[in-house]
Amino acid sequence: MNAPVAPADLAELSMTEAADAFATGAVKAEALVRACLARIEAQDAKVNAVIRLDREAALEAAAALDKARASGATPGPLAGAPMMHKDMYYRAGKVSTCGSKIRKDFTAPVTATVLQRLDAAGAIDMGTLNMAEFAQNPTGHNAHFGHCHNPWDLAYCTGGSSSGSGAGIAARFFTAALGSDTGGSIRLPATLCGVTGLKATQTRVSRHGVMPLSFSCDNVGPLVRTAKDAARFLKVTAGHDPKDPTSAGEPVPDYEAALTGDIRGLKIAVCETYFLEDADEPVVTAFEAALAALAERGASITRVKVPSMRAISAYTALVSRTESAAIHAEWMREHPGDYAIHLSARIYGGFAIPGHLYIEALSRRGPLLRQFVAEALTGFDLVATPTLRTRVPTLAETDIDADPANWARFMAVSANTRPFNYLGLPAISLPCGFDDRGLPVGLQLAGRPFAEATVLRAADAFQRVTDWHRKAPVL
Amino acid sequence: MNAPVAPADLAELSMTEAADAFATGAVKAEALVRACLARIEAQDAKVNAVIRLDREAALEAAAALDKARASGATPGPLAGAPMMHKDMYYRAGKVSTCGSKIRKDFTAPVTATVLQRLDAAGAIDMGTLNMAEFAQNPTGHNAHFGHCHNPWDLAYCTGGSSSGSGAGIAARFFTAALGSDTGGSIRLPATLCGVTGLKATQTRVSRHGVMPLSFSCDNVGPLVRTAKDAARFLKVTAGHDPKDPTSAGEPVPDYEAALTGDIRGLKIAVCETYFLEDADEPVVTAFEAALAALAERGASITRVKVPSMRAISAYTALVSRTESAAIHAEWMREHPGDYAIHLSARIYGGFAIPGHLYIEALSRRGPLLRQFVAEALTGFDLVATPTLRTRVPTLAETDIDADPANWARFMAVSANTRPFNYLGLPAISLPCGFDDRGLPVGLQLAGRPFAEATVLRAADAFQRVTDWHRKAPVL
Repeated sequence: MNAPVAPADLAELSMTEAADAFATGAVKAEALVRACLARIEAQDAKVNAVIRLDREAALEAAAALDKARASGATPGPLAGAPMMHKDMYYRAGKVSTCGSKIRKDFTAPVTATVLQRLDAAGAIDMGTLNMAEFAQNPTGHNAHFGHCHNPWDLAYCTGGSSSGSGAGIAARFFTAALGSDTGGSIRLPATLCGVTGLKATQTRVSRHGVMPLSFSCDNVGPLVRTAKDAARFLKVTAGHDPKDPTSAGEPVPDYEAALTGDIRGLKIAVCETYFLEDADEPVVTAFEAALAALAERGASITRVKVPSMRAISAYTALVSRTESAAIHAEWMREHPGDYAIHLSARIYGGFAIPGHLYIEALSRRGPLLRQFVAEALTGFDLVATPTLRTRVPTLAETDIDADPANWARFMAVSANTRPFNYLGLPAISLPCGFDDRGLPVGLQLAGRPFAEATVLRAADAFQRVTDWHRKAPVL
Repeated sequence: MNAPVAPADLAELSMTEAADAFATGAVKAEALVRACLARIEAQDAKVNAVIRLDREAALEAAAALDKARASGATPGPLAGAPMMHKDMYYRAGKVSTCGSKIRKDFTAPVTATVLQRLDAAGAIDMGTLNMAEFAQNPTGHNAHFGHCHNPWDLAYCTGGSSSGSGAGIAARFFTAALGSDTGGSIRLPATLCGVTGLKATQTRVSRHGVMPLSFSCDNVGPLVRTAKDAARFLKVTAGHDPKDPTSAGEPVPDYEAALTGDIRGLKIAVCETYFLEDADEPVVTAFEAALAALAERGASITRVKVPSMRAISAYTALVSRTESAAIHAEWMREHPGDYAIHLSARIYGGFAIPGHLYIEALSRRGPLLRQFVAEALTGFDLVATPTLRTRVPTLAETDIDADPANWARFMAVSANTRPFNYLGLPAISLPCGFDDRGLPVGLQLAGRPFAEATVLRAADAFQRVTDWHRKAPVL
């Protein structure tokens, strides 16, 4: 048996490396779980990524996998990979806080389809992760469970709303974590923490058993170490689910097989309109270097103007904020004091959005998607942007509970991610360097509807010639 | 050949009588059209039902039908029946004013699917009919084309928004007319003018090529003389249309075959909650007499409380007013002075409806439909109500441009019809008597989703033993 050599610290393994090492017999699931538990127990006091650690259940699950493996059972594609998930994926009988005070004792009545699929693939669930209250901020602040801290520098934002997912992947607490992405909540913590995050096409992954924030813009997806991890994770979780009638029925290709490393002839458009406006210099430098690396591999890079971005950016937040206001209306009436101040303000603002504008935003969605595809994705396979235009901000700089003057900086965080939620397009964020303060910079690649294989192929090709995704913070 | 005897005035024939008389050879299409034209030319100056009379085109179409009939062609189910339609059904190359100043020169780029189906069935289109501006009022006032007048007494409302359709059927100007029904706009003019009007289940009839008012509540349907007419008209027009992706795919039964006259054992619920509150005494008297006639035929009548009506009535107007505001937003910005004062006020009010309430109203629609069916249509086949709770009002009493104090009376007109648009249920209105001022009273029968056959069977059985639908106003 051709067993790969395991590193001294098994927590350094990526999700696919861990699963492959388990599959070949090179490592035991229990050893993988114990390596992750050791990391968490040593370092989470600083990071605050974890809400609930299911230590014994994880060790039992690992032992069962090891036993099955020893008796000759074929391991699932994720078997042995330790994971934790944003605390808004329901597991029947378990508490799902959604990062809130209101739901701190909410026991889930069902298990999310995506968790069922991960379970069936052999993933080990070690517990639940910190997140923005009700997944509603892009920074990682949480007034109820404490802010999540960036492992690269604890004074900085992790990005949100999947804060614990991003911070925990960066800190090597686990090999994969579900995030959710309504305006950037997977891609932002991926960027700010220097890891890889994938938001697939709208409706590609079932949302059954997942806390809703905006039914038109919510997406389920992973934060992981590599594009290869994201490919395997997506293959396991994507596809129609009868329990989520909105989930897409398009066939699910073998994304991992698409990772050929070959991007010769791939056409990448760089949208100069909107996405690069007022971008910080260190971000632009890292972004341009990433484009050069892609060009080096044979991709063509073309600068394009995209006039539709003006309208797209105007509509982008309207849909999710109105839907969020509808979802929270009853709780806001009954428990107004249980929300963080900044979240109350955000939801109250949503109450004031007129219905006719919401309808206008929804009815322009199809035409603007066609227009964006015509302008930026016709003759091009992918669009490239920095995931975050600015350097990673500190927690203090974006604390709007402490000072409402931070509002503009707070809202700017999701400027480059939220248009792809309105458009519904697949987009990945992957690390592509560091800024002048030593915080990560992220590259965002977006594709046409259901073109996840192309997005992943480019991201994987980039990671084959760069090692940003291998760098780990020292805690 | 068993040719029926034609009346002295062929305009007295109902739609099915006219089509059957043409089919048997008893009358010529040209004679039918000339009888209708004579009525219109003699009396429309009083009623103001007609916007555009296509005299020569109608005579040519009739001549072509007569020629085809003479050469042995099988006539379509509506062949020879003269019709006119609310001026919001598009016919390519023809003006469709939608009762407005803004669209007074709008030339339609497509032909409505429902017009294509009527054409294919042999119906003769004689032109277009007056209506409320953009189908937005329940009374028949129109500031641009003049108010439509009730043929039973010209001082009274025709009901709206399909004012010309209701008045013209009552005045025997044609045998059938398309109306549209978003909050009662078919059933109200049917009631106020003493004719029969059918709103089918939401999405039963294609809306392609029809002016939109509220995509969630708009319905296409006929105003006719009898339930039998409505059955044949619905059979021709219902069914899925690829050009309207929202149109229902449910099979279309032979509604006319369902008109057995037998309603023994039919269970009718009378909703005491809401629908009879503050009803005028002459209306209640006629309604109770209608229930007695149905009971006489073997139906059972049961009084029920329907607690869900409180919530249903609260949500009923929210959906259509918000969608209407979205549809009119651009015109309201560009041509605010081109709307009647009362319509501006109505649309401005729609702009102030918050999006989260619109979403709440939409998201409660399914649960409230289930609740209503559980409370009023489980153990019962139909729900019976007066179509209009009050006596028919005068044009002056409901003129809100002249006096905003008339607003409450104006809004009350659609109180009993609009809940069935929110619920999406099929409902018919048929004449069941006269009030103390000699104006018609209407009986509304509503059924479960897609139970049009049951609704029509009961209405037809009622018309077999009553002659309210045979009474005609003297102009």
